Amino acid sequence: MPGNSFGQLLRLTSWGESHGVGLGVVIDGCPAGIELSEEDFAADLARRRPGQSRVTSQRKEEDRAELLSGVFEGRTTGMPIALLVRNTDVDSSKYDAIRHLFRPGHADYTYQAKYGVRDHRGGGRSSARETVARVIGGVIAKKIIARRGMRVLGYTVQIGDIAAKTFDESQIERNLVRCADALAAEQMEQLILACRKERDSVGGIVEVRVRGMPAGLGEPVFHKLDADLAAALMSIGSVRGVEFGAGFAVAGMRGSQCNDAMRSEGGRVTMLTNHAGGVVGGISNGADLVVRIAIKPTSSIAQPQQTVDDQGVDSTIVVEGRHDPAICPRIVPVAEAMVALVLADHLLRQQGARVAYLDAVPRT
Amino acid sequence: MPGNSFGQLLRLTSWGESHGVGLGVVIDGCPAGIELSEEDFAADLARRRPGQSRVTSQRKEEDRAELLSGVFEGRTTGMPIALLVRNTDVDSSKYDAIRHLFRPGHADYTYQAKYGVRDHRGGGRSSARETVARVIGGVIAKKIIARRGMRVLGYTVQIGDIAAKTFDESQIERNLVRCADALAAEQMEQLILACRKERDSVGGIVEVRVRGMPAGLGEPVFHKLDADLAAALMSIGSVRGVEFGAGFAVAGMRGSQCNDAMRSEGGRVTMLTNHAGGVVGGISNGADLVVRIAIKPTSSIAQPQQTVDDQGVDSTIVVEGRHDPAICPRIVPVAEAMVALVLADHLLRQQGARVAYLDAVPRT
Amino acid sequence: MPGNSFGQLLRLTSWGESHGVGLGVVIDGCPAGIELSEEDFAADLARRRPGQSRVTSQRKEEDRAELLSGVFEGRTTGMPIALLVRNTDVDSSKYDAIRHLFRPGHADYTYQAKYGVRDHRGGGRSSARETVARVIGGVIAKKIIARRGMRVLGYTVQIGDIAAKTFDESQIERNLVRCADALAAEQMEQLILACRKERDSVGGIVEVRVRGMPAGLGEPVFHKLDADLAAALMSIGSVRGVEFGAGFAVAGMRGSQCNDAMRSEGGRVTMLTNHAGGVVGGISNGADLVVRIAIKPTSSIAQPQQTVDDQGVDSTIVVEGRHDPAICPRIVPVAEAMVALVLADHLLRQQGARVAYLDAVPRT
Amino acid sequence: MPGNSFGQLLRLTSWGESHGVGLGVVIDGCPAGIELSEEDFAADLARRRPGQSRVTSQRKEEDRAELLSGVFEGRTTGMPIALLVRNTDVDSSKYDAIRHLFRPGHADYTYQAKYGVRDHRGGGRSSARETVARVIGGVIAKKIIARRGMRVLGYTVQIGDIAAKTFDESQIERNLVRCADALAAEQMEQLILACRKERDSVGGIVEVRVRGMPAGLGEPVFHKLDADLAAALMSIGSVRGVEFGAGFAVAGMRGSQCNDAMRSEGGRVTMLTNHAGGVVGGISNGADLVVRIAIKPTSSIAQPQQTVDDQGVDSTIVVEGRHDPAICPRIVPVAEAMVALVLADHLLRQQGARVAYLDAVPRT
Repeated sequence: MPGNSFGQLLRLTSWGESHGVGLGVVIDGCPAGIELSEEDFAADLARRRPGQSRVTSQRKEEDRAELLSGVFEGRTTGMPIALLVRNTDVDSSKYDAIRHLFRPGHADYTYQAKYGVRDHRGGGRSSARETVARVIGGVIAKKIIARRGMRVLGYTVQIGDIAAKTFDESQIERNLVRCADALAAEQMEQLILACRKERDSVGGIVEVRVRGMPAGLGEPVFHKLDADLAAALMSIGSVRGVEFGAGFAVAGMRGSQCNDAMRSEGGRVTMLTNHAGGVVGGISNGADLVVRIAIKPTSSIAQPQQTVDDQGVDSTIVVEGRHDPAICPRIVPVAEAMVALVLADHLLRQQGARVAYLDAVPRT
Repeated sequence: MPGNSFGQLLRLTSWGESHGVGLGVVIDGCPAGIELSEEDFAADLARRRPGQSRVTSQRKEEDRAELLSGVFEGRTTGMPIALLVRNTDVDSSKYDAIRHLFRPGHADYTYQAKYGVRDHRGGGRSSARETVARVIGGVIAKKIIARRGMRVLGYTVQIGDIAAKTFDESQIERNLVRCADALAAEQMEQLILACRKERDSVGGIVEVRVRGMPAGLGEPVFHKLDADLAAALMSIGSVRGVEFGAGFAVAGMRGSQCNDAMRSEGGRVTMLTNHAGGVVGGISNGADLVVRIAIKPTSSIAQPQQTVDDQGVDSTIVVEGRHDPAICPRIVPVAEAMVALVLADHLLRQQGARVAYLDAVPRT
Repeated sequence: MPGNSFGQLLRLTSWGESHGVGLGVVIDGCPAGIELSEEDFAADLARRRPGQSRVTSQRKEEDRAELLSGVFEGRTTGMPIALLVRNTDVDSSKYDAIRHLFRPGHADYTYQAKYGVRDHRGGGRSSARETVARVIGGVIAKKIIARRGMRVLGYTVQIGDIAAKTFDESQIERNLVRCADALAAEQMEQLILACRKERDSVGGIVEVRVRGMPAGLGEPVFHKLDADLAAALMSIGSVRGVEFGAGFAVAGMRGSQCNDAMRSEGGRVTMLTNHAGGVVGGISNGADLVVRIAIKPTSSIAQPQQTVDDQGVDSTIVVEGRHDPAICPRIVPVAEAMVALVLADHLLRQQGARVAYLDAVPRT
Repeated sequence: MPGNSFGQLLRLTSWGESHGVGLGVVIDGCPAGIELSEEDFAADLARRRPGQSRVTSQRKEEDRAELLSGVFEGRTTGMPIALLVRNTDVDSSKYDAIRHLFRPGHADYTYQAKYGVRDHRGGGRSSARETVARVIGGVIAKKIIARRGMRVLGYTVQIGDIAAKTFDESQIERNLVRCADALAAEQMEQLILACRKERDSVGGIVEVRVRGMPAGLGEPVFHKLDADLAAALMSIGSVRGVEFGAGFAVAGMRGSQCNDAMRSEGGRVTMLTNHAGGVVGGISNGADLVVRIAIKPTSSIAQPQQTVDDQGVDSTIVVEGRHDPAICPRIVPVAEAMVALVLADHLLRQQGARVAYLDAVPRT
């Protein structure tokens, strides 16, 4: 399989480069009958775009989604849904100076090594601009899973050494870092601005929580829900780790601590704790899905760094430009999108789990 | 896609339950001409099997792989390679008592919720016995990637709160926990035995390192090498987190720290550090691949735990049996196998990266 | 994708060679809750096996299916279902003489050209024995589609120049060639016996009809129902053509003749003719599915034929052995199986067609 | 898998409707380093477009391909290649009259039955306009397979009851029906014009031949070369049958006739006849690939036909508009494209056939 499609039954195909015509996406497999218009994409695209606040890049991307197919009279038709976001505010000339240099932390060298050629302008296909397609797909996926009551919620839980300590959902979109702890958010913001001043960048951790999870999503033993989610999230640029529930902390736990005890609430099985993060044996258990991703500091920094050029000669590079000192706030909607895409995909194959489900689908 | 196949060009299909006839695996897509015999599987199956030492389960599984197809006169033919490991030492009667109870931490409840039915004997398909198929596939994958000089090395780096501090490769297979730090290994062993005595279990962390990596493996933007590896490793039972290189520690780093500077060594690009863990932009950069997985404590513990039965009634369960107090030592070969399978799969599609590679394949 | 798996949601993986341990199959994605036992496979395996009558090969293959996984207490569990049919009556010695010769019409040369090696004993993997796995998968698929009232019916419509002229379904399994025209069946039988006497073989045409078709199966524009069926049927050894409804005869028709006019019968749309064979625009229209396949004469004939050896030297070959003079009667259950597998696969994804279907699946 | 993607390693994703913004296509998996520009698509798009001659539809579609991604400085980069052909000359108003009527032979009813909704304007997604995406993909595929010397040649061999009797390759593009027999071409042309006058349409047969075939392409037992080709060709609208080499004529042949005898020519194995059409056991044998498809008469005819409306009421329909009286001449480039796509896909996986091929790919 080439790498630019994602999903089995809800299938997203992404194309486009940072400094080309634009970013495009085709979503195939969306059920017919869902209301959809160009306006539906505006909110999440705005949460992803650079230039949205003083803690993100100052580049201006308008990022309006043009709906090219798959919708008729306001509803999906079951046909592939194509969307295009044109590149604007594109100036490639500043990349001329580093055309032959590999930026540390970026995919310049690895693309060159693999393909023997690369579009050096803004990283080309390896640019974070590629996540536009993911966010668009996420909007559609969120609509699909909403029909079963699932709601995806992403937020920043750590920037540098500052971790959120409280959780107030209503705070998330009220601060620039998208953190549910207003106090920590303020400190995070200060840290990011300090990093920018030092011509440096800083990493962080983003958490995604899904409320309203049904039990029963996931396909053991290789398409387990957590396995598919791990791939989805790790495929986002800058992500270096993924963990569910208690995550890496399980290493230090005892079984008697870590196992989530069960209780019946009105006939429905519930978990007394959620160390599993909502997935056991690769299948959702009805508890909230909880997953965290580690985000590395933005690779583009305006400091001299040691590198090599494409002729194999040692050199030094300073990456100028309007880069994010911390990418976490903008990764939040991207991570949400990937989680929603995986959940929608698994939801669409639920029919195959039991003969009773198969029988339940109405006859034509 | 149903869940029991893995890989795109090297495709492993797994079947079997803990207390059924046995565990089976079909590997399709292995190139013709590789030497292969039943003996090749013995070493890794022995590293995986229970009963191998006093820190693992005392169950005796002989785990001999029968080669059923795909090999002719000692070499692979390009046809699917089927193998079977029969279940022995199987006693299902002890599971009768908990037939209607959901074991906390196990997939009993989630399988029931999804499929409406489950084979309760030893967890059925959700048993760790399923990893037999993975280890077998890994043996073949290791042979494929060895042709490009790749060598996969797994080891335990943490058990409970005891972390390895030194690295001596030669120590790994000399101690029962498969740790490269002999001193830590001894402490880990003591901790595991103490947990067993307390009728409890303990988690840990396993690291896999691949030496001899070529640059250029991985398919952005969704089949990135690290994304595929994350799915592969997260699909192993008990794994709750995956991280590459510096992993979650990147959250606390600055860009100037985290970026791996580059230097030319005899024309070959090398990294001065390896915070990326050998993968940048989803493509290998030629540095060692380094990935770690967090393993939860074994769910089966001989202590009373709160649970629910399959009629939704609250209950208490004690899971008796010969279970591993720590699964890390036995997960090492499984994790190696999954890494090898992903690398082999990506290696087999390298031809498609460049027209020069396409042209290089000899004409029939 | 390697070649030995078939289907998307109901996925069959096949392995085994003519003179190896046996033929095996793994069916993944079968919904939980379907009654299944080893006895269910006996009837179709008997219809496929050689030695069943005087017009087929005289080889004796017992072909008993061993059920290895995926069934618990008489019902499917949603786990992969593995089955094995052991090879018996295997004598490889007679193939020693032609080990280095390529049999005309067989895949000897093409396997050698592709893989550089081949199991020459009875054709190895390229043997028609491989269809055992298909028939087994078909039994399960037939059970799945029966839940929607679909019934698959295969029969011979032509052997050599003798074509069936009448259709009496009750005749099909009463004659040795599986023809619905008793008179033609007798002539076909005579022709086959005459061909055997002449040390020759003869081709034919098999038709498959599915009654009880729902409208709405098929996934335009590349997984159209007829496209998937064409691949499924063309993948059977000896098939050289596939046609639906009026088939190749459409070339000579006018639009006014060929279009199937529609009428409402009690609100249900029906077709006045069925030139389309039940598929329009790649989606079933509720009329009977009708598809025909052209079967070439068996390649193994006991006459001298010009050929080449594996050193590229011209030679002559006589293929001795107990071969079918006409393969049609035994292909009938194989063709049925492939049709059933495709229909089951498409049925399992029906939920994704409309949001109303998605909503209809019960909540866990 | 949703239905709008095709291929495994060279993967085409198609989108768009007849009366929407346009038709689009994303080709993923094309090796880096191939020269490509918008001009490359002009010739085959012109061969496909309506209005090209007096025997095709009189609609004017300009069909200029805009290249949106995947090419940098004139060469492919290994990134997804997106192209867009805008719809022009679009007038939807004439479809208002038949909005609620199902056109016989068209997919109106089946789309409605499956999705519960349809874009009625010009058939929406089910329009033949969709083949624009296929032709574009074919241009890229032809470039890939040309590197191994493969050349794809399509032509009409039958229109109505008029069959080509001679073969002169140079004639094909010199007549309006794309027939290699100049005399037959003239008669075909007359027949088509007569059908138009009668407000009727006529079917035909198109053949595709590939010269320069290597031996060894195809993946038994389910992704056989002929199986993949059958699916590819059957997925084209209006195709009702596919046959290879001798095709349905094998039904009437004896084995002694049908088997292609082999001879060595300078060490290379050649076939004395080509009844197999270049594929044996699902793998190419080095002879020309020869495949034929049966094309039904265009469904849109300006005669009254019995039908049903979307409320289930009987009605009569006359399909006005500028439709092709025979679609064969315009299907030629589409059929070529599908054949090229399948061949390119199989070529890209050749590395996996043998360990020697794997070893041959240069190291990064």
